[in-house]
Amino acid sequence: MLTSKEYAHLCLSYKTTGQKLIMNGYGKTIGLVQLMELGNIETPIALTNTFNVPVVADALIDYSIVQNPDIGITTSTVNPVVCECSDGYLNDIQGRHVKKHHVLEAIKNASNKVTEGNVGAGTGMMAFGLKAGVGTASRIIESEDAKFALGVLVLSNFGRREDLRFLGKKIDLSPENEHNNREKNTGGSIIVIVATEAPLTSRQLNRICKRAPLGISRTGGYAAHSSGDIIIGFSTKNTLNHDDKNVKREIEVVNENSKEFQKLLVATVDVTEEAILNSLLMAETIDGRDNHEAPSLDINRLKQV
Amino acid sequence: MLTSKEYAHLCLSYKTTGQKLIMNGYGKTIGLVQLMELGNIETPIALTNTFNVPVVADALIDYSIVQNPDIGITTSTVNPVVCECSDGYLNDIQGRHVKKHHVLEAIKNASNKVTEGNVGAGTGMMAFGLKAGVGTASRIIESEDAKFALGVLVLSNFGRREDLRFLGKKIDLSPENEHNNREKNTGGSIIVIVATEAPLTSRQLNRICKRAPLGISRTGGYAAHSSGDIIIGFSTKNTLNHDDKNVKREIEVVNENSKEFQKLLVATVDVTEEAILNSLLMAETIDGRDNHEAPSLDINRLKQV
Amino acid sequence: MLTSKEYAHLCLSYKTTGQKLIMNGYGKTIGLVQLMELGNIETPIALTNTFNVPVVADALIDYSIVQNPDIGITTSTVNPVVCECSDGYLNDIQGRHVKKHHVLEAIKNASNKVTEGNVGAGTGMMAFGLKAGVGTASRIIESEDAKFALGVLVLSNFGRREDLRFLGKKIDLSPENEHNNREKNTGGSIIVIVATEAPLTSRQLNRICKRAPLGISRTGGYAAHSSGDIIIGFSTKNTLNHDDKNVKREIEVVNENSKEFQKLLVATVDVTEEAILNSLLMAETIDGRDNHEAPSLDINRLKQV
Amino acid sequence: MLTSKEYAHLCLSYKTTGQKLIMNGYGKTIGLVQLMELGNIETPIALTNTFNVPVVADALIDYSIVQNPDIGITTSTVNPVVCECSDGYLNDIQGRHVKKHHVLEAIKNASNKVTEGNVGAGTGMMAFGLKAGVGTASRIIESEDAKFALGVLVLSNFGRREDLRFLGKKIDLSPENEHNNREKNTGGSIIVIVATEAPLTSRQLNRICKRAPLGISRTGGYAAHSSGDIIIGFSTKNTLNHDDKNVKREIEVVNENSKEFQKLLVATVDVTEEAILNSLLMAETIDGRDNHEAPSLDINRLKQV
Repeated sequence: MLTSKEYAHLCLSYKTTGQKLIMNGYGKTIGLVQLMELGNIETPIALTNTFNVPVVADALIDYSIVQNPDIGITTSTVNPVVCECSDGYLNDIQGRHVKKHHVLEAIKNASNKVTEGNVGAGTGMMAFGLKAGVGTASRIIESEDAKFALGVLVLSNFGRREDLRFLGKKIDLSPENEHNNREKNTGGSIIVIVATEAPLTSRQLNRICKRAPLGISRTGGYAAHSSGDIIIGFSTKNTLNHDDKNVKREIEVVNENSKEFQKLLVATVDVTEEAILNSLLMAETIDGRDNHEAPSLDINRLKQV
Repeated sequence: MLTSKEYAHLCLSYKTTGQKLIMNGYGKTIGLVQLMELGNIETPIALTNTFNVPVVADALIDYSIVQNPDIGITTSTVNPVVCECSDGYLNDIQGRHVKKHHVLEAIKNASNKVTEGNVGAGTGMMAFGLKAGVGTASRIIESEDAKFALGVLVLSNFGRREDLRFLGKKIDLSPENEHNNREKNTGGSIIVIVATEAPLTSRQLNRICKRAPLGISRTGGYAAHSSGDIIIGFSTKNTLNHDDKNVKREIEVVNENSKEFQKLLVATVDVTEEAILNSLLMAETIDGRDNHEAPSLDINRLKQV
Repeated sequence: MLTSKEYAHLCLSYKTTGQKLIMNGYGKTIGLVQLMELGNIETPIALTNTFNVPVVADALIDYSIVQNPDIGITTSTVNPVVCECSDGYLNDIQGRHVKKHHVLEAIKNASNKVTEGNVGAGTGMMAFGLKAGVGTASRIIESEDAKFALGVLVLSNFGRREDLRFLGKKIDLSPENEHNNREKNTGGSIIVIVATEAPLTSRQLNRICKRAPLGISRTGGYAAHSSGDIIIGFSTKNTLNHDDKNVKREIEVVNENSKEFQKLLVATVDVTEEAILNSLLMAETIDGRDNHEAPSLDINRLKQV
Repeated sequence: MLTSKEYAHLCLSYKTTGQKLIMNGYGKTIGLVQLMELGNIETPIALTNTFNVPVVADALIDYSIVQNPDIGITTSTVNPVVCECSDGYLNDIQGRHVKKHHVLEAIKNASNKVTEGNVGAGTGMMAFGLKAGVGTASRIIESEDAKFALGVLVLSNFGRREDLRFLGKKIDLSPENEHNNREKNTGGSIIVIVATEAPLTSRQLNRICKRAPLGISRTGGYAAHSSGDIIIGFSTKNTLNHDDKNVKREIEVVNENSKEFQKLLVATVDVTEEAILNSLLMAETIDGRDNHEAPSLDINRLKQV
């Protein structure tokens, strides 16, 4: 697959095929309307907390104008895509501490090494009463006729402590001396980004996206009333040049009757589950506002099981 | 475009790209779930009245089994697509007088000459208090780079007498001695089938389908509460062989940024309006059950305007 | 909750609040368009196999006409709801052996004792390479302020043998001498009917329905490409009399911010999982067409675990 | 109905029942995901141009925090709803000249007198090659049993000059000396806000919203490829207190089988058409960036017809 930076640059001059799914829509994500209509993505997908969505979207507009000074003047405008979860338990969310330069630096520093846990938007996120954040996982779908990578990146911020399942097993991984906390048991949300090299249409990507909640379920999530569980899928193939006005395009698409498509569906479930577990495994204990604590999972307990 | 018969045969061995739109869903159409999921059509689209949907669907299964005796045994089952309006004002609808052999004969006799008015499912339909039924119209989208036909066939059974607009002008076209009739003013429904040679994906066909209600509006329709206003669109390009298990397909698709795509959108509005007007112009006065009458429009009044 | 018979009678004179969700739409269910538009259900929900949908729908029309001889004549038509899975591995599905009288008898014999396993539409269904069929489970949501039952009935016909999870644990429950069989590993489908006494609007029922696939996932389902995974939810409260033309209705609805609503979401996941496991536990070994066998799960193996 | 100010205050402490419809989604509106999921609206609906969406959303967060300092800390966050059209032909859209204080002043100055034409977000909008902007219209639905107002406010920025229809009649209303201009003929967008006193559920509001595009069609719109045609509907009845955790609510809802509901559907088409025409009639000629001109319609030509 592309590195993050390649992907960021790709989006500005081309439109990547994309699609979204809303598992539960108690969320403030921006950019999904056009993503759904046109089936494509025009900017890097940014992740942040709930109240920073506007400033991050504004920064993506800045970035896009630098890349293509014509937008909104002699060519069409741009559709920033920003997803969020609420980190209000640990963070002073009203303060909106993300500034435009953070966004521009993040895009500049994008690389092919995805860091996990308390990083970026993941810094203030919690799942199952434990510190969580960014997690990622991937699979290669390989056959005689094709080879595709499918990767998932999650911003993991959901789940009640008592519901966590590690590879199917219900398990309490909170530190021994940890006191249960009402506030940590609220709904929470998850953002799932599914990226693949397989040449999929937006309808096909929608079918892929619909499998991500099945992976969330395997970790113990049930999509609480107050969750904003949003899945975005994109393919790095079949990009469309912004200025292309030709009447026809030749594209390659996956045949849904093939065994490889079936494998893409299965992989989406499995990889989403794995990315969520990684978001817990890679996160570190952190203290937040007003003496709110977010302990990382107890690795010794996990080893015992 | 294909003749009806060619299309019927096409569907049985291949799957045609398709999509649907529900403008108002007070209707009993069968087959839309799979059409939406897979973006394709496997049988001829049959039109009938409300209570005959089951028998017509059953006949399409019979027909499909004859064409491909393996379905449901060693290959997948088949998804019959049947649309309907209620002709209960003129017809003894509870009697379900359509039999399987009528369906098989209709497919056998399908040709490239579309008849309009009181034909087939159109026999008992009324619109704007007047006799209506089947109507059709089409456009050629032509440019230096491409040439596509787009055609619409409607089963027209909707609208209040006082709302009819002929090319924008509100007009009463009922015969002079006609008495207004409460029952003729009920909601009613319309089925719109949009067919095109343009190579469109199912997402693109959905965008096309969304323009058909705009054409309905131009004739005076407002999609009454009790209407089943269903639009199905299909492209005769990019068919998928039922047995094709290859992982990839090369397809051609229209670029939505092209001026030709814009013309397809405009044409869908215009052609839908025209097809509805044709369904009125081509229908003939008929008497139905219990002394219910359905007068055709008064052509002299129309000429005066 | 109501007995099945009470529910059947309820539907004919009243319209029950309802909603549907399509997890994967490779299915031939009839009646969902109107269910979605109006948010209500007018007939008993019938379950059958794929090719019997038309005849069963036709029988529901017969039944409805007997209950209310005015439909389609002086009042509106009726919207039969029929769901299906394919039992083509065991059954001569092309034969369409269900007749109208079977449907009418089933409604007549509906009772408050739900039988599970190889019963009705469940007779020919298989899941995870094992005999499955009808399963059911329920929960009472009780608090100081309210008490609601929520029940699920599944027609279970999905899953690959190697994917079965029993209460989280991956487990092979096939008989020792069973030979793996390619054909049993195909996609398959599941129908989930969620019924509740909680007074929910159709939007709220849609939110409930979206949790059912999470329960499917817990048993090892991933919603295969070729599955018709359909969820229908209904509330027995807030029924609407067919002939009621009053401008306003007073209704009671659940507040989604209440802890009871959260419990309804959680219960839907749990009860769906349980109903699927019951469909396996209650089914019995059966021989089908062409020496196709469907062994029930090996209860001894299960006890060992 | 409520004045704008009453509505603004209403939204901050209560949640108004709402719903949206996307006719064509080439737009950057924020807030629709949660509006769809929960069926309610938590902030005033703000209208602006495309690139000002983020700053306006940020200002709505500011405003909400002032009204309720607990949001995001001890209670849930807030979902700002901001809609947009692109005024890039007349305006320096990249400059993003709307500041937070403009938003706060607009809410403060909200009144029950809606001004039309070149006001607020309407300042830079054009329709059918002419100056347009904000327009509004309303109807009273009155019967023996009920009396409801239904009003529409549009931000009108769409349509090709040659397509304008005034009350059904195709008409060129551009000033005599006006030269046709390629850039004025691009797609453009429209935002339609439908407000009513009728107690509608979000499903019912969705049905209302689906009629607004029929009104757009009557003026000559066809929902161009590049349009962001978004409809939001809300009812001022059945508001839900932000802090209400009770398990049940008693609400009043309209019966869709009533003649009054039918009238609400018809009114939505008619009032949307009228509001668009008003947006043209009330707008005044303006000069924009780079010598771009936007002439108002020629009232003399209109009178002649």
